[in-house]
Amino acid sequence: MKALEEKILREGRIRDGNILQVDNFLNHQIDAAFLMEMGDEIVRLYEGAGITKVLTIEASGIAIALAVAAKLGVPMLFAKKHKTKNINENQYKTVVASFTHGTDYDVVVSKDYLNEGDVVLVVDDFLANGNALRGLIDLIHQAGGTVAGCAIAIEKGFQGGGDALRAEGIRVESMAILDKMEDGIITFR
Amino acid sequence: MKALEEKILREGRIRDGNILQVDNFLNHQIDAAFLMEMGDEIVRLYEGAGITKVLTIEASGIAIALAVAAKLGVPMLFAKKHKTKNINENQYKTVVASFTHGTDYDVVVSKDYLNEGDVVLVVDDFLANGNALRGLIDLIHQAGGTVAGCAIAIEKGFQGGGDALRAEGIRVESMAILDKMEDGIITFR
Repeated sequence: MKALEEKILREGRIRDGNILQVDNFLNHQIDAAFLMEMGDEIVRLYEGAGITKVLTIEASGIAIALAVAAKLGVPMLFAKKHKTKNINENQYKTVVASFTHGTDYDVVVSKDYLNEGDVVLVVDDFLANGNALRGLIDLIHQAGGTVAGCAIAIEKGFQGGGDALRAEGIRVESMAILDKMEDGIITFR
Repeated sequence: MKALEEKILREGRIRDGNILQVDNFLNHQIDAAFLMEMGDEIVRLYEGAGITKVLTIEASGIAIALAVAAKLGVPMLFAKKHKTKNINENQYKTVVASFTHGTDYDVVVSKDYLNEGDVVLVVDDFLANGNALRGLIDLIHQAGGTVAGCAIAIEKGFQGGGDALRAEGIRVESMAILDKMEDGIITFR
């Protein structure tokens, strides 16, 4: 999505260690109008896929997932990162390894809202190593649902998570893929 | 908002201890189309208020705040609940006492995104004792901004937080106010 690439170049900031910071429009302050535009583009890409639900993970995936769900006219469900060891019998649970924090965490959704027969689009703001997406896909499979694919705002292509999922036959649509960040220069795929 | 009252009666579930559960449309699974309708209603109520930014708190406030911001055409900012004791100099910080968990937690926003001159609408999914709203209002005041008011999906009127804010001259618009829940019967204001 050309508009997102331009926005990253115009508004994104590159921090030490080649970290792209987009918390001015994507994951702290949020450009609501622009997210609705990304929602339109994602709906266009997945037209005819028969999606019944949008699934994301708290917290920064919620905004873009809501934009997509509103445009699609289906419910959005956000998985919760569990802090407690309480197991609720009415939850599907998976474990996600956090690249950023170096720890594992539990991710849960209520069994009431993910069902056999659901055709689910997984939406998130970032895709790096793909662990969070794999966790969400696992929850869908536990429920007996179908994965329509994934829709991501920014994919860090050089971390390989998106391509690994694609190699397994999972559809992954990213609005922008960063293939290289070197010396403050971003190269898009 | 009549449509929300009807939705609560139709889809909400009352748990032991008179707890209203609306995680099928508001704070786990989210009825995206309905949230956009609430966004329309909130925008109508605050027409002419000159709002420049919508502020909420992660995680379950993000969806309704995005709906409002998209309809208003202004950015949305979500405050983060801090787990670490790291103080970042570029953050405004406040402390919120959690009624649910019986503990205090830090709430932060980047100083980059809340400014003098901002006219801020505070949005959240629930209002009970008002502690979270007071924390967000404190962040706006630290930044030198102006509070346009608050917009809430469901206010638990019997907990008094909304009326205390109103008594202090803060505009609080709730799409539904529950004045009583007894023996599974909900009375709206």
